Amino acid sequence: MAKQVTKKSKDSCIINAAVYQGNERLCSVNLDEAGEWAKKPDHIVWIGLYEPDEKILKKLQKQFNLNPLAIEDANQTHQRTKVEQYGDSLFIVARTLESQGKYIALHETHIFVGKGYVVTVRHGGSASYGPVRLRYESLVHPFKDNEQFITYSLLDFIVDNYIPVVERIHHDVEQLEDRITKGPFEAEDVEELHRLQRNLLRLRTAVAPMVEVCKRLEHGDLLPVPPDIQELFRDVTDHIRRVQDEIEVLREVLVFAFNTNMMLGQVAQGDITRKLAAWAAILAVPTAIAGIYGMNFQFMPETQWQYGYFAILAVMFTICTTLYLLFRKNDWL
Amino acid sequence: MAKQVTKKSKDSCIINAAVYQGNERLCSVNLDEAGEWAKKPDHIVWIGLYEPDEKILKKLQKQFNLNPLAIEDANQTHQRTKVEQYGDSLFIVARTLESQGKYIALHETHIFVGKGYVVTVRHGGSASYGPVRLRYESLVHPFKDNEQFITYSLLDFIVDNYIPVVERIHHDVEQLEDRITKGPFEAEDVEELHRLQRNLLRLRTAVAPMVEVCKRLEHGDLLPVPPDIQELFRDVTDHIRRVQDEIEVLREVLVFAFNTNMMLGQVAQGDITRKLAAWAAILAVPTAIAGIYGMNFQFMPETQWQYGYFAILAVMFTICTTLYLLFRKNDWL
Amino acid sequence: MAKQVTKKSKDSCIINAAVYQGNERLCSVNLDEAGEWAKKPDHIVWIGLYEPDEKILKKLQKQFNLNPLAIEDANQTHQRTKVEQYGDSLFIVARTLESQGKYIALHETHIFVGKGYVVTVRHGGSASYGPVRLRYESLVHPFKDNEQFITYSLLDFIVDNYIPVVERIHHDVEQLEDRITKGPFEAEDVEELHRLQRNLLRLRTAVAPMVEVCKRLEHGDLLPVPPDIQELFRDVTDHIRRVQDEIEVLREVLVFAFNTNMMLGQVAQGDITRKLAAWAAILAVPTAIAGIYGMNFQFMPETQWQYGYFAILAVMFTICTTLYLLFRKNDWL
Amino acid sequence: MAKQVTKKSKDSCIINAAVYQGNERLCSVNLDEAGEWAKKPDHIVWIGLYEPDEKILKKLQKQFNLNPLAIEDANQTHQRTKVEQYGDSLFIVARTLESQGKYIALHETHIFVGKGYVVTVRHGGSASYGPVRLRYESLVHPFKDNEQFITYSLLDFIVDNYIPVVERIHHDVEQLEDRITKGPFEAEDVEELHRLQRNLLRLRTAVAPMVEVCKRLEHGDLLPVPPDIQELFRDVTDHIRRVQDEIEVLREVLVFAFNTNMMLGQVAQGDITRKLAAWAAILAVPTAIAGIYGMNFQFMPETQWQYGYFAILAVMFTICTTLYLLFRKNDWL
Amino acid sequence: MAKQVTKKSKDSCIINAAVYQGNERLCSVNLDEAGEWAKKPDHIVWIGLYEPDEKILKKLQKQFNLNPLAIEDANQTHQRTKVEQYGDSLFIVARTLESQGKYIALHETHIFVGKGYVVTVRHGGSASYGPVRLRYESLVHPFKDNEQFITYSLLDFIVDNYIPVVERIHHDVEQLEDRITKGPFEAEDVEELHRLQRNLLRLRTAVAPMVEVCKRLEHGDLLPVPPDIQELFRDVTDHIRRVQDEIEVLREVLVFAFNTNMMLGQVAQGDITRKLAAWAAILAVPTAIAGIYGMNFQFMPETQWQYGYFAILAVMFTICTTLYLLFRKNDWL
Repeated sequence: MAKQVTKKSKDSCIINAAVYQGNERLCSVNLDEAGEWAKKPDHIVWIGLYEPDEKILKKLQKQFNLNPLAIEDANQTHQRTKVEQYGDSLFIVARTLESQGKYIALHETHIFVGKGYVVTVRHGGSASYGPVRLRYESLVHPFKDNEQFITYSLLDFIVDNYIPVVERIHHDVEQLEDRITKGPFEAEDVEELHRLQRNLLRLRTAVAPMVEVCKRLEHGDLLPVPPDIQELFRDVTDHIRRVQDEIEVLREVLVFAFNTNMMLGQVAQGDITRKLAAWAAILAVPTAIAGIYGMNFQFMPETQWQYGYFAILAVMFTICTTLYLLFRKNDWL
Repeated sequence: MAKQVTKKSKDSCIINAAVYQGNERLCSVNLDEAGEWAKKPDHIVWIGLYEPDEKILKKLQKQFNLNPLAIEDANQTHQRTKVEQYGDSLFIVARTLESQGKYIALHETHIFVGKGYVVTVRHGGSASYGPVRLRYESLVHPFKDNEQFITYSLLDFIVDNYIPVVERIHHDVEQLEDRITKGPFEAEDVEELHRLQRNLLRLRTAVAPMVEVCKRLEHGDLLPVPPDIQELFRDVTDHIRRVQDEIEVLREVLVFAFNTNMMLGQVAQGDITRKLAAWAAILAVPTAIAGIYGMNFQFMPETQWQYGYFAILAVMFTICTTLYLLFRKNDWL
Repeated sequence: MAKQVTKKSKDSCIINAAVYQGNERLCSVNLDEAGEWAKKPDHIVWIGLYEPDEKILKKLQKQFNLNPLAIEDANQTHQRTKVEQYGDSLFIVARTLESQGKYIALHETHIFVGKGYVVTVRHGGSASYGPVRLRYESLVHPFKDNEQFITYSLLDFIVDNYIPVVERIHHDVEQLEDRITKGPFEAEDVEELHRLQRNLLRLRTAVAPMVEVCKRLEHGDLLPVPPDIQELFRDVTDHIRRVQDEIEVLREVLVFAFNTNMMLGQVAQGDITRKLAAWAAILAVPTAIAGIYGMNFQFMPETQWQYGYFAILAVMFTICTTLYLLFRKNDWL
Repeated sequence: MAKQVTKKSKDSCIINAAVYQGNERLCSVNLDEAGEWAKKPDHIVWIGLYEPDEKILKKLQKQFNLNPLAIEDANQTHQRTKVEQYGDSLFIVARTLESQGKYIALHETHIFVGKGYVVTVRHGGSASYGPVRLRYESLVHPFKDNEQFITYSLLDFIVDNYIPVVERIHHDVEQLEDRITKGPFEAEDVEELHRLQRNLLRLRTAVAPMVEVCKRLEHGDLLPVPPDIQELFRDVTDHIRRVQDEIEVLREVLVFAFNTNMMLGQVAQGDITRKLAAWAAILAVPTAIAGIYGMNFQFMPETQWQYGYFAILAVMFTICTTLYLLFRKNDWL
Repeated sequence: MAKQVTKKSKDSCIINAAVYQGNERLCSVNLDEAGEWAKKPDHIVWIGLYEPDEKILKKLQKQFNLNPLAIEDANQTHQRTKVEQYGDSLFIVARTLESQGKYIALHETHIFVGKGYVVTVRHGGSASYGPVRLRYESLVHPFKDNEQFITYSLLDFIVDNYIPVVERIHHDVEQLEDRITKGPFEAEDVEELHRLQRNLLRLRTAVAPMVEVCKRLEHGDLLPVPPDIQELFRDVTDHIRRVQDEIEVLREVLVFAFNTNMMLGQVAQGDITRKLAAWAAILAVPTAIAGIYGMNFQFMPETQWQYGYFAILAVMFTICTTLYLLFRKNDWL
């Protein structure tokens, strides 16, 4: 509760805000001076926000001269995964994943990138970008004094976080597949299949448009990208496409599982019907015979015989046994 | 009734017709002078019609020099969602949605846009564009003295009206999904699934071509669009594509629901068949035995025994119980 | 019979052949002079043929210098819907529709267009183009002295004739949809669904390539088209695409109907199996009890009791009623 | 046997090899001189081979300076249908069809075309190109002194040979469709459907890439083609696309047949289950009543009545008849 | 065990490393001098590695100035099949196949190609490229002094190794198809179908992106390729597309098999239900009659008749036989 109150208090949504020269952290920065710092050559302002209120966003807009439409989008979730260019700045919307029990939850991160600044806006359970910042501060890398390198690091982090989720689904799908050879699915297997299909669909919703985003960044469709950064973006594209390929394969595997199970169900239904029929036939014989000798006719010669009863028992037994063997031979039993 | 008569009376189909300079409303305007007003620099004539008769449309055509083919289209409903360029004017057909009980009804709005004028022609239950006009008149916005801004406002309004409809379907689909885990569908669930599929199809019919329309307006394929308006159209494109993505996801979710239900139905059918078979087997035993001892043979030693009856009852009970336990163990019961 | 003989007699396949200056009919024309008339500036020869024999086609070829491959095609039916350019003339193949009882029949019209002439060749039940000619002769229209305007009029007529066919199918599909809520389909509903699928497929065969034909004419890919005619062709494209969209929607509606019905069938099968099982269980009780008391053991105490019979009847009744009520509660009955 | 020996003997695989000037056959030609003849202006060497051994192919390669990769391909079957350019020569692989009983067999023809020569290499049951040669030698045609005209004639011949095969399948598909209205399929109908699907798939394998081959030849992507030959290739493209369209329609018709049959099967299954249930119910009544009066209670008043037996028979009969009529009314019987 | 230790020992992962001038092997080469050798004109260093450790890869990177991202990829498996250009070098990832019992395992080979060097990095069960090296050393071929020729040879080898795997699946699919005509599938046939679908999916995963890789190499999108090498790459493209076509056909054949089997299962289910119903009806007759004459009414005239018993047996027999014959006639039995 207290936490939620804190979250709403002024600036509590600012997770981190600092100026960097190269990858060296100069100082923390106040939102109201961020624009000026960003304009200094070779300086980069990197601000991390978590579910900011409108006031903060308005400040940001003023500092970096952001487009009001982008700011409006950043204030809402349920945006499409996309990258859009507004003047000389980019607005990126990326989906992040979180395993919630058996289902996958989708969250969002919005990124503003422009000359001299990077702003991340996290919503919901998006993982913190603290590790990205730490790595940035600690690594020595030729192109680190570049807002596009930070953008790359963020997207790389987001995409890398997809992989354990996909791997878990992969694992669950394989378990379901192993289940196939053990006869038709029970209700809980069917529900598991449904759950996996839903998760894969949700995953695909997040991943598929991300390929487009990465490709556009890689090819410098929007802003010119130096070749070495281009190679980095290509690497992210490659990772995300690997995830996408995996999703498509898993989706198809589930379709196979569905079809195979429908067929096995049909086979099982056929087996059981045949078995039922066979036993019904076997049992019908003594019933019919017993019925006949249960009739109350006064003159029924067999009933007078000394061993009629045993004879008829023998006849019943013989016919039933013969039928049983015949059905066995025909694989009905 | 009276209303319908009114509707047919002269000019009753003109909902609003005014001249604007910037976003300031100068005066109402008569159709016969509309053309002249439109030609004055920085003046915009904005006319709102509702199911106009041919005479009105002919007047319009004359005033704004509209293409007769577009006028012919505007006089009929069941047009395709589209944008078409005739000379230096645009003719846009957009679908509007209305929830009618459990189903979605599609209506139409036709928009004529040219230098200095915007004409909207509503058909059926299309929502009034009064709110758009009010917002236009009240807002201060750098590009408001532009017929393309009004076009944007209209399309934005239309697309925003799609969202509650999609959300309602989304909600219904989720309810149906929750239903899945409660065993195979009843007939009314199946009908609900069918209804949702139909509504999504109808929705897609309205939405899918709208993406194309917005994109063409955004990219200025037809008329040159200033960059700031372009960004606004891009925003509409983004909204409509979000709706489209949602529709595709919901369609797929329904397919999953269908498949899952078919499988659950098969599972349930198998369960019931097995249960049926088990009980038939259990009951067949006393029937067969009773049949045998119901035969009228004169010499049936067991029937003479003092406790034969009780013995045989015990045998029956033992066999039935054993069978019952066996079936339980095999999960048939 | 006589008619057929006539049809084969010389020139009986020439339905109409006339020279026009503007839209004024100058005179009828003999095939042997058609070429000369066509060469006069502002004159157009318009010839309408019905299943012509090879001799007539050869004459045509000579008069208008047509391509032998096109002539060969025009002599056969079962051409693909297409437009092809041979030198400076066009050869168009269009499909026409005819409702024959419950099914749709496809026919063909071939059109040759070149500078100064239009030749239509009808096959099978293609509707006569008399109305098109009448309208051409009666209308005052700025671009009527143009062979491309006639081409447009012909295609417009053909496409307009698709609409009632689609509407009839639309009506039948809706009736089938209403049928869904009344429980699983009977055999005749299934056959109706099949008939509609077949008709839609046939319709699509005719319509789909027509979109391409109209588009190519609209964009002047083949011959240069003046802008005002271009708009007319665009209008035809628009109509044909509306028909196409409708076909796709109807096809999908039938798929939904199929799936919904499969599910309803499964539900109904489950219901009936449960009902069957319940009644079997209820009836098994008196049968089993009666069987037991039908045994011929000498010592069966209950049978000696004064009211044993009535007691046992009461027991039977009680068990059956209890079972019945239980099954009701579980919705099996 | 003898034939096979002959086939393996030297040059027995050379079916025909001749030099033409225009379409006039000058003389037969020896492989070792073929190259020289081909170089003479206006002379064309046309060689027809049937499953040649490697030695012959090596000779060919040397004479016409063919590419070793193409020669390697020509020595093997199971090539993809394709056209490839090696320097200034083309290598075409086309599939030919042969009806073998109920199935379609695919064979291959490889064609080498270059300045002054055409070489055909037939494999398996490909039809002889004798008729093409005969027509070439007999016809008077403006462009006959052209190796591309011969290529056209060969492809035209190959494609024309597809048509009877497609027509036969069309006929079989229609027969299967007529079968639909006669109730659910028997096993042999299902197998027929499967056979047709397989044949259509095989056909499509042969036809689909052929469209690409013809289009590339038509558009002169590979070697420059004079306009009149281009029109001829376009004609072949048109034929092959007609075949392709037909295949796609037939494939879809089979899908409809499959679905319709699944539904009819479900309907039939429902009918029979209902019928079964109804008869079971009707028969259960006398069984239950007879069971009750078959019990051996000492005091069962009805059994003492004079006409108890007849009364009970009447009761049985009445109940059974009533049930029967009720089931009839409900359409269960 | 010993082998594994060896594998981990220094340089044990270097399978072969040699310098070639033309196709003549000059000498083995140490990794630390490889870069210098590669720079000498007309010399090519060809290094074959098997699951190298990071140290080796770092050395390689230094020698040939490779991109660190590519090196990172080469150190991991589960890369996407791809070709990527880093400066003037290429990095190729190709999948290799291995039959493991009934399933196909995918392995990987990574290839670095640049001016003067080719490095192959095998992972898992990828076949050794020894044969490619041997053929290279023994063949006389005009373009052998070219790193692209070696690239071609490697890809050709990889693709050729796909063919036996596809052929084995082809064989298994055909066997499954033959199985169809022998009635509905048993559970093991269903599992076989599932196994084949899974293998084909895995195969497609490997093959489909390979087409793209080969095409890009063929068209010289990345590095300029001399025309004669281009023809060689085209040949590989052709092979891989043949494999791909085969996979698509086999996938569709399995779909047909699935559908056919579902239908046959339905037919069989219908048959058995009808048969069951028929026998139930036949057996119900004697049961009902016997039940009636088993009742204990005191006055049942038939039971007093001398030959009542035999008469009733005759009646039973007649009715049963008649029913049997009727069912036979209706094809229920």
